[in-house]
Amino acid sequence: MPKIAESTVRRLSLYLRFLEDFEAQGMDTVSSEALASRGSTTSAQVRKDLSFFGSFGKRGLGYSVPELVARLRDILGLERTYRVAVIGAGKMGSALVQYRGFQQRGFQIAAVYDSDPAKTGRTWNGLRVRPDDRIEDDLRHDPVDIAIIVTPAESAQGVADRLVGAGVRAILNFAPVQLNVPDTVVVKNVNMALELEALSYALRNQ
Amino acid sequence: MPKIAESTVRRLSLYLRFLEDFEAQGMDTVSSEALASRGSTTSAQVRKDLSFFGSFGKRGLGYSVPELVARLRDILGLERTYRVAVIGAGKMGSALVQYRGFQQRGFQIAAVYDSDPAKTGRTWNGLRVRPDDRIEDDLRHDPVDIAIIVTPAESAQGVADRLVGAGVRAILNFAPVQLNVPDTVVVKNVNMALELEALSYALRNQ
Repeated sequence: MPKIAESTVRRLSLYLRFLEDFEAQGMDTVSSEALASRGSTTSAQVRKDLSFFGSFGKRGLGYSVPELVARLRDILGLERTYRVAVIGAGKMGSALVQYRGFQQRGFQIAAVYDSDPAKTGRTWNGLRVRPDDRIEDDLRHDPVDIAIIVTPAESAQGVADRLVGAGVRAILNFAPVQLNVPDTVVVKNVNMALELEALSYALRNQ
Repeated sequence: MPKIAESTVRRLSLYLRFLEDFEAQGMDTVSSEALASRGSTTSAQVRKDLSFFGSFGKRGLGYSVPELVARLRDILGLERTYRVAVIGAGKMGSALVQYRGFQQRGFQIAAVYDSDPAKTGRTWNGLRVRPDDRIEDDLRHDPVDIAIIVTPAESAQGVADRLVGAGVRAILNFAPVQLNVPDTVVVKNVNMALELEALSYALRNQ
């Protein structure tokens, strides 16, 4: 499979959501135009994005909704579930653990850790917050696929090093710091303030 | 000023963070190479990004750190503060209201709303959660610059329509739905599950 851009992967995720809505409404086929209009993009873009993975639309008939759903779920790696550990039991960590959208997409929060004894022992969604010195032992017995780092900035690199050492290959990083990891590990960053700065830029330059 | 891509704006935000670190360490000048290595990009990319806004580096000397900080803050619209309303007082709304990174960048949470009477009246960070039928009245007297929507998907479009009607021109949307707004309003979307899907895609295609 060719290496595709992050922005394309993001659009595929969106197409999948729209298609699942269409499926729930009982639609059998969908045109690239309908997908484009839901996604605020162009039908040419939709066709180009989907053509990366082999053509599965029929001219004049559009795409089969169930076929395209299955294909996109496969491409995005969503035909399985993923075990996820959350490191950092602050407000944001708490919100993420209880975020229903993760479970719905097959991302199961399997463990939550914090270094603060005042936070360990609390129970969220049936999960007890564990002391973070248990990470290595726990992951040896019950590996996770993905770790979400929601620690303060100054702790994030140390936590990332330990997670990578414990075999984690995918990290979603909420700490406002650039993580250094080996090439074999994939990191995505979420920075709330950065999102607001994209808005302040837009307001400033209207 | 030329219209620049969202990905460029994002890199400018990151450069600003690095430069502020450099400034705190007492550095006067910085090379494009040093900025590039902090940001996991190339020095050619750094020079290209900054050249959009006029050249302010000196060959062989690099960029003046305080000058570049001031220039980037100006470009990103960060020389002022922004009043922000949060609509949706669930777990994620609570985490956002208490997120220190917003205040530090000049984004001041001015009001929080919810439609659920069980949530209104609670106090977070000194802010009382207000019934969402107060939005129009409140914004007439105390306008906000930016609204953050963290409602369930099914309420988000209705809330967005009301905010736009009340004069809001910039929305950060956490609801997993595509918002329809006039061209004069800018929307950025944050979708936590989408971020995890970028990781499942990477794991699937390693």
